[in-house]
Amino acid sequence: MKLTAQQLKDFDELGYLFMPECFNPEEVALLKQEAGDVLSQQRPEIWREKNGAPRTAFAAHTYNEACGILASHKRLVEPLQQLFGEDVYVHQFKINAKAAFTGEVWQWHQDFPTWQADDGMPDARAMNIAVFLDDVMPINGPLMLVPRSHKSGALKSEHDLETTSYPLWTLDNQTVTDLVEKNGIVTPTGKAGGVLMFHANLVHGSSGNITPYPRRIVYLTLNAVSNAIQKPTRPEFIAHRDFTPVHAGSDEALTDYVKQQRKAA
Amino acid sequence: MKLTAQQLKDFDELGYLFMPECFNPEEVALLKQEAGDVLSQQRPEIWREKNGAPRTAFAAHTYNEACGILASHKRLVEPLQQLFGEDVYVHQFKINAKAAFTGEVWQWHQDFPTWQADDGMPDARAMNIAVFLDDVMPINGPLMLVPRSHKSGALKSEHDLETTSYPLWTLDNQTVTDLVEKNGIVTPTGKAGGVLMFHANLVHGSSGNITPYPRRIVYLTLNAVSNAIQKPTRPEFIAHRDFTPVHAGSDEALTDYVKQQRKAA
Repeated sequence: MKLTAQQLKDFDELGYLFMPECFNPEEVALLKQEAGDVLSQQRPEIWREKNGAPRTAFAAHTYNEACGILASHKRLVEPLQQLFGEDVYVHQFKINAKAAFTGEVWQWHQDFPTWQADDGMPDARAMNIAVFLDDVMPINGPLMLVPRSHKSGALKSEHDLETTSYPLWTLDNQTVTDLVEKNGIVTPTGKAGGVLMFHANLVHGSSGNITPYPRRIVYLTLNAVSNAIQKPTRPEFIAHRDFTPVHAGSDEALTDYVKQQRKAA
Repeated sequence: MKLTAQQLKDFDELGYLFMPECFNPEEVALLKQEAGDVLSQQRPEIWREKNGAPRTAFAAHTYNEACGILASHKRLVEPLQQLFGEDVYVHQFKINAKAAFTGEVWQWHQDFPTWQADDGMPDARAMNIAVFLDDVMPINGPLMLVPRSHKSGALKSEHDLETTSYPLWTLDNQTVTDLVEKNGIVTPTGKAGGVLMFHANLVHGSSGNITPYPRRIVYLTLNAVSNAIQKPTRPEFIAHRDFTPVHAGSDEALTDYVKQQRKAA
């Protein structure tokens, strides 16, 4: 899937692209079921909230076939090859649960400072792609983005080991206030199947979720092959060391997998 | 201010009434300034978040003149006299700060179980009236209401002393899930000056606020005089023992106060 000239312009200007209903209901149903299976497992790659609910399942593409297919899906891989002008590899793949009632906050941050400090990533030539597995509503802890904030480059961040269950390089309140005064906040919401791509330096965060609506999202991080990480300090399942380029699969890859599964059943 | 037949019908059916821009910008400016003054004070009536930021200023109508005027304002008092068919008195008056960046969660609850258990209120003939002092947006921790949930009466609640800074009788997740499945969730949002009245048994809660936008709200609780509390256990500034009926002031009361202040200056 190629981005249009307008999409490229929007991305450059705003720092994100939102594609509602990028995956159809059949594909979403498969991904939801597989994500449910993954999150119910007990494995070291699955991190939990303070109350024990699963928060993040890392590297699910390495132990779940549907997730593996998603990690090289044409609709996700091709736009990034296009934006970076070169091959990409999977730096990280995770399912964030943001559970009903207990989903915790993600403080304001940019992704690149964490990748740079913790993984030794040279440049902001990697990107998070969010695939909505549940309907994302204003009330269930949607991702909040500060448009245009990627133009500020990598901002001064501090290592937050306290307020959330996941160590993160976060921004101070004054920095966020200044950026929001200029640019506001957007919260792309919509049906499961939507896809949101955002620049590694785009400032974002999300509130907790006290509603009965879970808000599961897959985050696929693709990195330009020429930008492979150099000093990883995090476990392999959080920052992959296999820099083999991803070859974009068929646009029908998930649908074909559903058909195979049905035949096998 | 009298409620219309349609408003009475809506309230009966949905359990709440939202009146956008009930107070005009001049009135709001006054209330914001006075609320800021109140919240900057150090007094036992002012409770704080875990990080020290002011969370709730109780009984501000007893030590701030503008708040005193608001507590007997025609637009707030008359609708409740009409709904209860009798005189009302001030059971509680508070300013909830929901500070920028650090505003904490209010778990799902009904108001009446707390008033009943902690104050010995006989019946659900009291009501919270929320006056928005800041713009309430989907992103800064708006009040979330479950419409029609007041029809369930007082539900089984548990005393939550842990998850929030304010002891509250809260509902369990299954109860909330069942009600939300039937009725959904609404989040009245809008400009500062909006007013939201909701039934004492309406289920509601609010998420934390990590945005740079504070979300201050005045909550005036008016109780029917025949329903005066009988066994108060909380301090006087949280559950008043003065059951003198409130006489609705002039519709111009806040505007007149602004004029007086200007003359005096």
